[in-house]
Amino acid sequence: MKILEERIKKDGLILNDDILKVDSFLNHQVDPTLMMQIGEEFAKLFADTKADRILTVESSGIAPAVMTGYAMKLPVVFARKHKSLTLPDNVYTADVYSFTKQVNNQIIIDKRFLHPDENVLIIDDFLANGQAVQGLLNIAKDAGANIEGVGIVIEKTFQRGRKLLEEHNIRIEALARIAEFKNGEVIFTED
Amino acid sequence: MKILEERIKKDGLILNDDILKVDSFLNHQVDPTLMMQIGEEFAKLFADTKADRILTVESSGIAPAVMTGYAMKLPVVFARKHKSLTLPDNVYTADVYSFTKQVNNQIIIDKRFLHPDENVLIIDDFLANGQAVQGLLNIAKDAGANIEGVGIVIEKTFQRGRKLLEEHNIRIEALARIAEFKNGEVIFTED
Repeated sequence: MKILEERIKKDGLILNDDILKVDSFLNHQVDPTLMMQIGEEFAKLFADTKADRILTVESSGIAPAVMTGYAMKLPVVFARKHKSLTLPDNVYTADVYSFTKQVNNQIIIDKRFLHPDENVLIIDDFLANGQAVQGLLNIAKDAGANIEGVGIVIEKTFQRGRKLLEEHNIRIEALARIAEFKNGEVIFTED
Repeated sequence: MKILEERIKKDGLILNDDILKVDSFLNHQVDPTLMMQIGEEFAKLFADTKADRILTVESSGIAPAVMTGYAMKLPVVFARKHKSLTLPDNVYTADVYSFTKQVNNQIIIDKRFLHPDENVLIIDDFLANGQAVQGLLNIAKDAGANIEGVGIVIEKTFQRGRKLLEEHNIRIEALARIAEFKNGEVIFTED
């Protein structure tokens, strides 16, 4: 997605070989017009699917997921990060390992909002090691739901996320695919 | 806002005298079409202001705030709940007391995304005791920004939030104002 790649080049901050900061338009300050364009792009890419609902994880996934839901006229469910020791009743839960913080977090989705045989689309802001998406996949599997595809705003192709998803035969659409950071510049993959 | 009141009556769950659960369309499962209508309503109500940006708090504020930002063509900043002990550099911070959990949480906004003399609009999903909005007001004050108004999706008028804001002479627009819960029904205030 040209307009997204240009925005990443213009406003993304490369912190080191691994980390790209896009908090000026995606995950702290949000550009709602860009989010709508992202939602419309996902709607176009997944127009051939028969999705019933969209899943994401709080907080950074919410803006692109809600715009995609708006464009596709689908409900959106954001998994909540669960902090307390006692689990509420009637929830699906999955562990999400954070490589940066080296801790396991739990995410939960209320069973009222995900049902057997539903077709779901997963939308998230980043695909790096794929742990958050993996958590959502585990929840969908527990629920007996089908995965129609995974939509990612920014993919770092040099990390293991895509490989992990491809092993499950899952369709992935990424709007910007970063091959590497070189001399302080973002290099995108040639599609 | 008629359509919102009807949705609350239809899908809201009253848990006790204080708590209304609207996680089927607002803060866990999200109805994107309703969120867009909410955003357009706030845009209409605040059309006479000269807001430069919208502030909210993760996670439940993000969907209505981003839709309002889309309708008003304004950037949205969501304050992050801060968990670690060490504070990053260059952030505004405020304490937010949770009456339900009886703990203080910190929220933070990067100083790159809020500037002196900017005019800000605060959007949030709920106004009950007003602690989250108060935290954002404190951050805006620290930054030297002006508050143009506070937009609330659902207000519980029987709690202290509005009084707290009115003491600061702050304009509040609430789309649904709940007077009380009576015999398992939501009673709205007559405007």
